[in-house]
Amino acid sequence: MNEQDDIRAMRWEQPGCLKVLDQRLLPASETWLTLESARAVADAIREMAVRGAPAIGIAAAYGVVLSACQHASLPAAGRVTAVVADMECLASSRPTAVNLFWALKRMRGCVDRHAGDPAALLREAQAILAEDLAQNLRMGELGACLIEPGSAVLTHCNTGSLATGGHGTALGVIRTAWRGGRLSRVFATETRPWLQGARLTAWELARDAIPVTLIADSAAATTLRDDAIRWVIVGADRIAANGDVANKIGTYSLAVLARQHGARFMVVAPSGTVDMGLRSGTDIPIEYRDAQEIWKTASAAPPPAAVSVRNPAFDVTPAALIDALVTERGVVRNPGVRSMAKAFAGGQ
Amino acid sequence: MNEQDDIRAMRWEQPGCLKVLDQRLLPASETWLTLESARAVADAIREMAVRGAPAIGIAAAYGVVLSACQHASLPAAGRVTAVVADMECLASSRPTAVNLFWALKRMRGCVDRHAGDPAALLREAQAILAEDLAQNLRMGELGACLIEPGSAVLTHCNTGSLATGGHGTALGVIRTAWRGGRLSRVFATETRPWLQGARLTAWELARDAIPVTLIADSAAATTLRDDAIRWVIVGADRIAANGDVANKIGTYSLAVLARQHGARFMVVAPSGTVDMGLRSGTDIPIEYRDAQEIWKTASAAPPPAAVSVRNPAFDVTPAALIDALVTERGVVRNPGVRSMAKAFAGGQ
Repeated sequence: MNEQDDIRAMRWEQPGCLKVLDQRLLPASETWLTLESARAVADAIREMAVRGAPAIGIAAAYGVVLSACQHASLPAAGRVTAVVADMECLASSRPTAVNLFWALKRMRGCVDRHAGDPAALLREAQAILAEDLAQNLRMGELGACLIEPGSAVLTHCNTGSLATGGHGTALGVIRTAWRGGRLSRVFATETRPWLQGARLTAWELARDAIPVTLIADSAAATTLRDDAIRWVIVGADRIAANGDVANKIGTYSLAVLARQHGARFMVVAPSGTVDMGLRSGTDIPIEYRDAQEIWKTASAAPPPAAVSVRNPAFDVTPAALIDALVTERGVVRNPGVRSMAKAFAGGQ
Repeated sequence: MNEQDDIRAMRWEQPGCLKVLDQRLLPASETWLTLESARAVADAIREMAVRGAPAIGIAAAYGVVLSACQHASLPAAGRVTAVVADMECLASSRPTAVNLFWALKRMRGCVDRHAGDPAALLREAQAILAEDLAQNLRMGELGACLIEPGSAVLTHCNTGSLATGGHGTALGVIRTAWRGGRLSRVFATETRPWLQGARLTAWELARDAIPVTLIADSAAATTLRDDAIRWVIVGADRIAANGDVANKIGTYSLAVLARQHGARFMVVAPSGTVDMGLRSGTDIPIEYRDAQEIWKTASAAPPPAAVSVRNPAFDVTPAALIDALVTERGVVRNPGVRSMAKAFAGGQ
């Protein structure tokens, strides 16, 4: 059931570089970038060569290792100062996914414990990656159990091996459910403007020979109505203490439409995505990205003065629209303040 | 209030050709095609050089004129036979918008009355165009009256001068409301996969110096929640006897989301769009277009075998989600079987 796919978003190479599969070029080209500094990792995150909340966290952890390698010759105090400065740069790369800050916080603890020792930091980054993969396999099982055999499901954005340490979150549930013979069909939204669904999810599923039907985002309502979708399954970039979920723009729309059509709504994310410090989804910072991400498909020329373009990368789905929140700790049904506190008390 | 914009989707040129603004190339290039046969018009409709339900009807009417010109030297009976054959070709160009069939039926009456006389048919086509423009100006006034001053509105696809004989249906209401000082802001969805909103609506509004904010289709839910949208305003390709509306894919989604967020939903279309012969929206034939319209933005290579692409061009919005149906005959509030029968008794 759990044989793993071989798609990976990044790999560490000795003696000290991070290879990252450039997701901007998929599916046309499988090009690996060689990153040799924390700054290069921050740029790759900002420019979305690597993306997906868990993958961003893992890449940032390796970015800290690169920083430590670069400053290895400094005395301990100076090395720690230099690495911490690089961590600021990594932290400023993208604002919404909390995994980035979660991973950096964990790496910071390791920096302090080991005076910025590169070998210790590499072990920590590799542990973060391995734990993420293990969590995804666990979530795959937990989520797949919720799906009745013969179900059609719909997913949004890319939450697969490319977005994580491997297997995936929402797409991990779909992988596990598919291998368990539970799915009749997978629908994937193309996910404008960046087309994570059309470019990445379709590519991942095709590599695994899992049949997928790609639709425009705006065709989801009709698909939910006409194709008896049982579950809409998505990932998360940050989850507030009341169970509100920030995820790829369009997720909120799908949650409303799922409720309207009797489909259930599953959010799959490692517990590191939960930010118990935020009371509700309105406190989650939403990233607005460059207008060109939307406009460039319409025209090579810049938009006329009368045209403004608004490009939020994420939206917030209220907890009330979520039927199941799956983390590696278990399933929270109908998440809310109390059930979240119970599940994630004592930190994540 | 009613000064007209100067954008036109097509123009007739003596002695016998139809110039069509190639909407596939907008906004990058304003290229006019010269069409000299009914078959060329059918191709232009099928390939969406000209699109928009009313504009398709008008173009088809001119296609009949071109056919009559081409066969002018035949004896009357042969000419009628040849023109009727060309009308079949025009009728097969696109299935969903009823305006095409409505316009062809009207032209057929003229063919029969005047034995396919080109001059008579040209007068009829020009009358259809002039009536469409007059209807749009009338609908603009009727629809704008429903909008409280200071409202933000959202529109989908392109329903402007490019989609009609001029001024537009939904966009005509927006033009009239803007000139009347009723609108605080216009939001336009980009409208995947063909990007009518990003390419055409943005271009039309920019030409009229009407400020517009372009969003991805999937950002509509957040916009409805956060920007206090009062009205979602759309056109229609076919309206059934119970008030169900077929329109650009994504319309149904917007109707559900509008209801969820307390925005009202307005459909604007000439009465020729109403098809009282169809009991409900489920009877409306929905066109599925080529997968490449969606896939080509993701990759130049064809999709892998495991990836299928589903590309419905339209969806059906149930009458229950429509607050106001505006035609040139007046406003039908909360359309349903009875109110539709009352408004459109005696044919459209």
